[in-house]
Amino acid sequence: MEIAFIGLGRMGGNMARRLMRSGFRVVGYDHNPTAAQALAAEGLVAAASLSELVGQLSAPRTVWLMLPAGEITEATLNTLSTLLAPGDLLIDGGNAYYKDSQRRAAALAEKGIQFADVGVSGGVWGLENGYGLMYGSPEAVEGRLEPLMKALAPAPDKGWLRAGPVGAGHFTKMVHNGIEYGMMQALAEGLNLIHHKRDLNVDLAALTEAWRYGTVIRSWLLDLTAQYLASDQSLERIAPVVEDSGEGRWTVLEAIELGVPIPVITQSLYTRFESQDPEDYDERLLAIMRKMFGGHAVTKL
Amino acid sequence: MEIAFIGLGRMGGNMARRLMRSGFRVVGYDHNPTAAQALAAEGLVAAASLSELVGQLSAPRTVWLMLPAGEITEATLNTLSTLLAPGDLLIDGGNAYYKDSQRRAAALAEKGIQFADVGVSGGVWGLENGYGLMYGSPEAVEGRLEPLMKALAPAPDKGWLRAGPVGAGHFTKMVHNGIEYGMMQALAEGLNLIHHKRDLNVDLAALTEAWRYGTVIRSWLLDLTAQYLASDQSLERIAPVVEDSGEGRWTVLEAIELGVPIPVITQSLYTRFESQDPEDYDERLLAIMRKMFGGHAVTKL
Amino acid sequence: MEIAFIGLGRMGGNMARRLMRSGFRVVGYDHNPTAAQALAAEGLVAAASLSELVGQLSAPRTVWLMLPAGEITEATLNTLSTLLAPGDLLIDGGNAYYKDSQRRAAALAEKGIQFADVGVSGGVWGLENGYGLMYGSPEAVEGRLEPLMKALAPAPDKGWLRAGPVGAGHFTKMVHNGIEYGMMQALAEGLNLIHHKRDLNVDLAALTEAWRYGTVIRSWLLDLTAQYLASDQSLERIAPVVEDSGEGRWTVLEAIELGVPIPVITQSLYTRFESQDPEDYDERLLAIMRKMFGGHAVTKL
Amino acid sequence: MEIAFIGLGRMGGNMARRLMRSGFRVVGYDHNPTAAQALAAEGLVAAASLSELVGQLSAPRTVWLMLPAGEITEATLNTLSTLLAPGDLLIDGGNAYYKDSQRRAAALAEKGIQFADVGVSGGVWGLENGYGLMYGSPEAVEGRLEPLMKALAPAPDKGWLRAGPVGAGHFTKMVHNGIEYGMMQALAEGLNLIHHKRDLNVDLAALTEAWRYGTVIRSWLLDLTAQYLASDQSLERIAPVVEDSGEGRWTVLEAIELGVPIPVITQSLYTRFESQDPEDYDERLLAIMRKMFGGHAVTKL
Repeated sequence: MEIAFIGLGRMGGNMARRLMRSGFRVVGYDHNPTAAQALAAEGLVAAASLSELVGQLSAPRTVWLMLPAGEITEATLNTLSTLLAPGDLLIDGGNAYYKDSQRRAAALAEKGIQFADVGVSGGVWGLENGYGLMYGSPEAVEGRLEPLMKALAPAPDKGWLRAGPVGAGHFTKMVHNGIEYGMMQALAEGLNLIHHKRDLNVDLAALTEAWRYGTVIRSWLLDLTAQYLASDQSLERIAPVVEDSGEGRWTVLEAIELGVPIPVITQSLYTRFESQDPEDYDERLLAIMRKMFGGHAVTKL
Repeated sequence: MEIAFIGLGRMGGNMARRLMRSGFRVVGYDHNPTAAQALAAEGLVAAASLSELVGQLSAPRTVWLMLPAGEITEATLNTLSTLLAPGDLLIDGGNAYYKDSQRRAAALAEKGIQFADVGVSGGVWGLENGYGLMYGSPEAVEGRLEPLMKALAPAPDKGWLRAGPVGAGHFTKMVHNGIEYGMMQALAEGLNLIHHKRDLNVDLAALTEAWRYGTVIRSWLLDLTAQYLASDQSLERIAPVVEDSGEGRWTVLEAIELGVPIPVITQSLYTRFESQDPEDYDERLLAIMRKMFGGHAVTKL
Repeated sequence: MEIAFIGLGRMGGNMARRLMRSGFRVVGYDHNPTAAQALAAEGLVAAASLSELVGQLSAPRTVWLMLPAGEITEATLNTLSTLLAPGDLLIDGGNAYYKDSQRRAAALAEKGIQFADVGVSGGVWGLENGYGLMYGSPEAVEGRLEPLMKALAPAPDKGWLRAGPVGAGHFTKMVHNGIEYGMMQALAEGLNLIHHKRDLNVDLAALTEAWRYGTVIRSWLLDLTAQYLASDQSLERIAPVVEDSGEGRWTVLEAIELGVPIPVITQSLYTRFESQDPEDYDERLLAIMRKMFGGHAVTKL
Repeated sequence: MEIAFIGLGRMGGNMARRLMRSGFRVVGYDHNPTAAQALAAEGLVAAASLSELVGQLSAPRTVWLMLPAGEITEATLNTLSTLLAPGDLLIDGGNAYYKDSQRRAAALAEKGIQFADVGVSGGVWGLENGYGLMYGSPEAVEGRLEPLMKALAPAPDKGWLRAGPVGAGHFTKMVHNGIEYGMMQALAEGLNLIHHKRDLNVDLAALTEAWRYGTVIRSWLLDLTAQYLASDQSLERIAPVVEDSGEGRWTVLEAIELGVPIPVITQSLYTRFESQDPEDYDERLLAIMRKMFGGHAVTKL
């Protein structure tokens, strides 16, 4: 079995590795040539361009994209649509917006190219543990996805599913990340509360380590939190700035479109927005309102 | 008609003034002697101590406390309970917790001293505009409260009520302030959103001024906001720190006790908490979780 | 001065009236012919079609649309773009999404037709009180908007502004409504909390009436709430279902796009979503989770 | 080693079992005699009263309470304080408010009786999997708690800790449950959103089962959710009513006292409050406000 991988970064590189370890022949391309060269030592067939990559595969081809959401994915898909042939299968495993995936699938279908969207979870631990995978595709390509899923997932029969038609992969991955935001926020709030209960002086590293077993909140996010806190619980050198990467925002857009309340997921996203904005114009406004009606003091900068 | 006022600060001083302008004889005491002396020029009978203050009144006496919530109110009430006589009426117009007021009323009742709790709204503008007043008391003292209400309110028949038995004054004032938190937050969020829509470059001073007339959101808080923004809409020198003064917290405690959801009022309080905490340990935790599962970069301080 | 009005419903009909009372000649059209006929008695020139309406005006024409957001507005604008001539001015006073308004302005500009977007607030009370108005337009048409604003607003110099270029009218009106959602929610939460404090038995009609004067939360929304509660505070016959009409949703979309936290406005929208969904699948999920880990009883339907 | 257990319900009965399986001699009492009799077949020494229970132990005694929070715990502790002797150790493993535990410890200390508060997590699965345990106590009794922890926890060296002085056990368990509320809510919101995306028709049972492996949100709560959904994903017969059991409320009280924002945990509690209140007076208020300012239709019941 063979597959091409485009995008050999933190995620794509390790996924290619995991497939090679399962016996796949993997042809790889990255706009940064050193990424492919590094994997060549592990068996990857490095391609210097998209056309060279396509030329290295026998028809019908399977090409897996693992690129950041946005313009690069769009441009690469456009190029590939001119290089691939009817019957070829394009898989987007990046974090694309599911509506983009549905639009792209429709455009590719006009050229006879199949498309599948795969949500991939597991982060930097996937090489070792396997990835959680949820994909959307026409039913007709299920058989072509199956060996890839079995090799990438934690076990051949665990951690992957065809979630539905095209779009269902990125849709469910998007919601997965929304849930992730909420779980992270719940953990952060609870630990922060204990942190402020100075008189009890609880050791958060020991507490989170103990919570990993037997409790209702045991979870992988708790495992990782305990692992980090074991070496640093002051967090003095960590900036309180939390980025967001698109899927949280898309989840809220979907809630608005469908009219479904997701207050906790949304609040988790807003906490991140708050952390990204040093100006805090809203809080300045509150301060001057208090001053105006009650004469309350305002701190002048 | 005569009344004693204890606490002649920003609120109490102006209330005493407004009563004197309505023809009340006001005896006043403040732990800071200059506060009473300043008002003496406007007709206040300044007392140098609580016992002197009580001695200046004919029985049955009416004494109005206008002190910060907490220990000073408790201590002053304890002292007064030994100085006053059965039939006297003690009014607490400060921002006390309504459960404290109910407890105090019960203790004073054992000595035959009447008690009323009054929520007073209107801030520094009350002298000019009149105060919004809501009180709790036994029905028996309604007649003694009425002339005070008529003089302090914006108009004799507007802006005051007996909300119920003892506790109802401070309870309804507490909720009033909870609503105030929510309204302020709604305004601040909306204006902050417009502030970030840089390409439209909306003049927030002109906008809030226009919104004061004909719109659904016209309100006194909007009036004050427009008034401030007219002279400064950069807010560059205003620190984004918003204090809270007890009633927002009590409102949430009540919601928890009664099992009533008040998400918007609570979130408004949490925004203030967030503004008061420069450490942001919760957001640091979120940053390290992202790093742990996804290898996302963390900013080091 | 003359103007054409398209859409003579609850809002448009009263706005046409207010303009006629100020001396405007108003030509009107509504897809329901009785709406225009009813206004004919008050001086409106009723048109039976869009082309008849355009024919009744001298160039350069001014045409005001007051239609529901969505397909009708889009279709009517398309038709008008074929009927109007360069130099004519089209005003959309309905609740359109500001991005649609910007797109429409660009399309009309290619034909030399000017466009302005006006946010109109004030609801059913506008005829009597005047409307709050905020508009976006090219600077070149300010002079043509001004007499309309002066006639529609509560006073010639109050309650209206040019908020910025095209889009700024509907953008600021959108945020106005977001703030409105938050203020309404704050009021509803506070009053609901008092409603549940059964032992104090507060009369909410009397309380809200008193709060209208002197308090920090005095506002038009409070005025209206007091007015309704005066005749019914049980609300027994009012269904707890709260519709939303687009602008709340657009406000949240904007917050997501700009990365600005608006937790209170969003929560207010989610309360409405919650009220619209009788299934409550999320709460059923919570119930079964509790059952699964803790053996807690679940109510069976 | 021996211990007495008071309260042999769903939690206490299984904990007694797990201790007996580790070789403990367990004396047991429950106000319902059949509970103790049922365990007698497995080796429990059933006591018919508290005094008989105390009489069955050699000094220094260890007595573990596993009762619902509230009056029963208070009354039982009062009785035991008269039956126990200096040097005895009382352990409260129920879900008590940590401030009650601190107060009780101080009162018992005056009689020379030691006290430890233990937060116990794991629900109905603890017998099989072991319990997560976090306790607060004087350092002096660590040695007496250790064998109990090792037997009850999932493994002798995993899943338990002394979190700090008296109060720290119930405090950290309280926050654990707050986090649990937030995680549950995040899951419920995400799954509800997918449930409403009708056109993708995702099988939630298959999705949650797949998510259990390799994903960032893998967790015990997800395991249990998948297990339930495998047999019923319509949830048609499950009432959307979610009880709360005290700890979520105490967590919010603590946040208010310490001034720490916990928006997600609080919102999770409010969702439960909302589900418990069929009246929805707040939403009725919103409906009439919309009617009053905008003439929007209200559904009449």
